[in-house]
Amino acid sequence: MKVYAVGVGPGDPELVTVKAAKLLSEAGVVVVPFSSNKVASLAERVISPYVRGKIVRVKLPMRREVEEEELNTIANSLCSELKDFKEAVYVTLGDPTLYSTVFRLIDRMPCVEEKELVPGVTSFTACASRASMSLALGGDAVAVVPADRRDVLSKAVGVFETIVIMKGSMGLRESMRLLEGYDVIYARRCFMDEETLGKEIVEEDYFSMLIARVRKDAKR
Amino acid sequence: MKVYAVGVGPGDPELVTVKAAKLLSEAGVVVVPFSSNKVASLAERVISPYVRGKIVRVKLPMRREVEEEELNTIANSLCSELKDFKEAVYVTLGDPTLYSTVFRLIDRMPCVEEKELVPGVTSFTACASRASMSLALGGDAVAVVPADRRDVLSKAVGVFETIVIMKGSMGLRESMRLLEGYDVIYARRCFMDEETLGKEIVEEDYFSMLIARVRKDAKR
Repeated sequence: MKVYAVGVGPGDPELVTVKAAKLLSEAGVVVVPFSSNKVASLAERVISPYVRGKIVRVKLPMRREVEEEELNTIANSLCSELKDFKEAVYVTLGDPTLYSTVFRLIDRMPCVEEKELVPGVTSFTACASRASMSLALGGDAVAVVPADRRDVLSKAVGVFETIVIMKGSMGLRESMRLLEGYDVIYARRCFMDEETLGKEIVEEDYFSMLIARVRKDAKR
Repeated sequence: MKVYAVGVGPGDPELVTVKAAKLLSEAGVVVVPFSSNKVASLAERVISPYVRGKIVRVKLPMRREVEEEELNTIANSLCSELKDFKEAVYVTLGDPTLYSTVFRLIDRMPCVEEKELVPGVTSFTACASRASMSLALGGDAVAVVPADRRDVLSKAVGVFETIVIMKGSMGLRESMRLLEGYDVIYARRCFMDEETLGKEIVEEDYFSMLIARVRKDAKR
């Protein structure tokens, strides 16, 4: 079968692309991967205006180190569920190339003969848009760093004009302390119901981030 | 007036968001900034299925250092052209927060009382999608670096799992030489008519880029 791995954007159904909307509405079956019920319901809220076919939920373990065998079992069982379909749409919040689970699973699915990725709006440009700020002008460089990668962050500070700290569930406050010389915005769930933007960290969860722009007067 | 700064994605009209499509089709006037006639025609091809109102082209100088006075003159003259409208859509290829001209101009326009940014699909996730590759899995960090910023690139190599070299008109080949330990893909005009993807640099232009993923066996 052919699987479309489709980015559905940051959380607003209107920020789905025309292509994604079309694929979702024509699909006989739509796969929604989730690590918690909350993530599944977020994704389902985004796609609900479009989907007409069957929805298959796939629970994926959140841990970074997942046993091969466990993933193979999930992949096989998903193929059994999809056996009556020639095509399926695999939904991913944001963009499929940035931190999506799709690559962990799709390449293990024995029923998948062909895959096509459809890019979507990523959460960090969505949050910058909500803050009416530019991430990069002219020759600026941008670093996108998960919150638990303080090894990378410490080397990016003072080098990159913009640093985005993603996946805020693991140490957003500690990352904040390293961002000397930067103006920092906290953003969470941009374009979703619980959107929060401001200067203070309100909550550290997977959907929260920091966007740091170097101060013009900062030493370089 | 209110101006919507709308990202229209990498180049395929289907990769415009539902929101952008709606704003474009309802707009009485759509502003298309361009630095060369080729860029204007690319943007116009993307929006043509949607736009029903008037199109206003604005020629912007490409040089990084533009005189304040020159930009102010352009901003004022644009306001005269828009004087009969309460709202306008300002089109930007890709996403308005990444290397868009919108911030240079919009904040100087005396007629603009309100602005709203609408995020779009950026060119580098679009190119990664076309290459069926992941830019980041798990805890990977991503650097986005313009091709003439070899000061940043030399510090990013060996630290970031993925390095994207954007704006390939200024030294793509020289950047390539610094990417030791990485598998590199050359990508140009993804989702456009002249799309090119491969291992070799074919042309160095503004719409070409390198996507580098660290090799698993590379020293860290």
